[in-house]
Amino acid sequence: MEIAMIGLGKMGMGIAENLLRHQHQAKGFDIDPETGKTFSKMGGTFYTDIKSLLTNNNTQQIVWLMLPAGILTNKMVVEVANHLSAGDIVIEAGNSHYQDSRNNYDYCRERGIHFIDVGTSGGVAGAKNGACMMVGGEQIVFEKLKPLFTDLCVDKGCIYSGSAGSGHYLKMVHNGIEYGMMQAIGEGFNLLHHSPYDYQLEEVAQVFNHGSVIRSWLMELTEKVYQERVDMTEIAGVIPSSGEGKWTVEEALRLKVNLPVITQSLMTRFASEDCDKISEKLVALLRNQFGGHAFVKDE
Amino acid sequence: MEIAMIGLGKMGMGIAENLLRHQHQAKGFDIDPETGKTFSKMGGTFYTDIKSLLTNNNTQQIVWLMLPAGILTNKMVVEVANHLSAGDIVIEAGNSHYQDSRNNYDYCRERGIHFIDVGTSGGVAGAKNGACMMVGGEQIVFEKLKPLFTDLCVDKGCIYSGSAGSGHYLKMVHNGIEYGMMQAIGEGFNLLHHSPYDYQLEEVAQVFNHGSVIRSWLMELTEKVYQERVDMTEIAGVIPSSGEGKWTVEEALRLKVNLPVITQSLMTRFASEDCDKISEKLVALLRNQFGGHAFVKDE
Repeated sequence: MEIAMIGLGKMGMGIAENLLRHQHQAKGFDIDPETGKTFSKMGGTFYTDIKSLLTNNNTQQIVWLMLPAGILTNKMVVEVANHLSAGDIVIEAGNSHYQDSRNNYDYCRERGIHFIDVGTSGGVAGAKNGACMMVGGEQIVFEKLKPLFTDLCVDKGCIYSGSAGSGHYLKMVHNGIEYGMMQAIGEGFNLLHHSPYDYQLEEVAQVFNHGSVIRSWLMELTEKVYQERVDMTEIAGVIPSSGEGKWTVEEALRLKVNLPVITQSLMTRFASEDCDKISEKLVALLRNQFGGHAFVKDE
Repeated sequence: MEIAMIGLGKMGMGIAENLLRHQHQAKGFDIDPETGKTFSKMGGTFYTDIKSLLTNNNTQQIVWLMLPAGILTNKMVVEVANHLSAGDIVIEAGNSHYQDSRNNYDYCRERGIHFIDVGTSGGVAGAKNGACMMVGGEQIVFEKLKPLFTDLCVDKGCIYSGSAGSGHYLKMVHNGIEYGMMQAIGEGFNLLHHSPYDYQLEEVAQVFNHGSVIRSWLMELTEKVYQERVDMTEIAGVIPSSGEGKWTVEEALRLKVNLPVITQSLMTRFASEDCDKISEKLVALLRNQFGGHAFVKDE
């Protein structure tokens, strides 16, 4: 198949490499012309504008969007749809909110364009060498694209998840679970760090990956972190988040579903980014008010 | 090596099978004589009392304890120590509290007996076919026993974790992490269950295990649960706990270490076992007191 890639960042370039290795044709666009050099070396054809990328050649066009979620992706869906014809396919594989994907699906469908939402997991290495993809949209379009997804994913690493938005919804919940798992690992290793024993945490992570109940890819990454002997004093204890954890909790609020651990993982991230620490300061001052307990002054 | 197994329950019998398969000799004791039949069929020599099991044959004896943690294990350590001689080895591989293991180590050491604490992970299948073991105690004794542990564990599945108690401490934290990971999975699948999409959760768990960030043994077990098409309406929403999660949180309290997600996982288990629901009832009645909000009467 010939795929028009829009967005050749780390993930998009990985997908492009994966496509080309599987004998698909790839043409591409990115606002950064530097990415074009890498893409061309790989064997892709780089275009410097969307219009020429999507010049109608009277065959069904397949466009793969791999852009930052939100406004950028949504605007691009509109722009791309304006260059496509009925029967063409837009595959949107960013980390989008499922509601955006439903809207984008509706927008495309009104124009006779097929819209497929893909939740992609496995990181940059996965994009390049074999990803995990959760695909929502019309099943008949998924079936047509199946050979493509089969090439891009690891064995059994692709699912048709249901109607429009279901791929991104599933990826959202996947990331919520990921937040909880990562937080549990972080807490456990923090306790070991403070424990009365002098554990070699690289060896601990390694043994946890061999025969234990908690063996997992995230534990393998933990092993890698300790193998690299990162100086923890040089890393800020700040955990950014890119949206899916927050959306998972928002969805739980909408559906009134109890998600204590996933919510707590998200709140721990927010607390880690909170430099003002107003709540901690206020509680310390309240203790001082009623009990005369000392508070610590900032230097 | 010849090992005297005490405790031939699911885990102990698994270890015994594993030992015998690796050409070790096993003699054994259990209060349940039925286990003796299974054990003898496997090739072990069953004894009906501790004294005859541990009759001194003038060689160094190695005793493997695989009993319920707490009083049963601690009493057995004392009883066994009374039958052993200086230089003999007690391996205690139950889910014991690390402080108990420190005490048992001290008790044995006063008598010249070596005491080794082993945190065992991997479940019953692991005990039988290849476990993950975290071993605390004197390093020189560990080195002597290393061929034994190598036989019992999967490749790289054994660690010398440090001084007495460190094996059980590490297993405790391992289980704390396990609580958090399991809870995160439970919550994510609960959200999917209530989602607007009709997900095939067996397929979802399967795709999560192929190339995704959250691939893990626990997700493989999740896949197995949905494969078995358990009728969820027939399962009570009650999660028992056997101690390690509680000990992990107690240790965090002792060391003043923040474990929000592991603590919340434990509290979720306690809430699941709380039939009285006094706190929920009280909050509902308080809402009624100040706002006249209706409360729900139990039928």
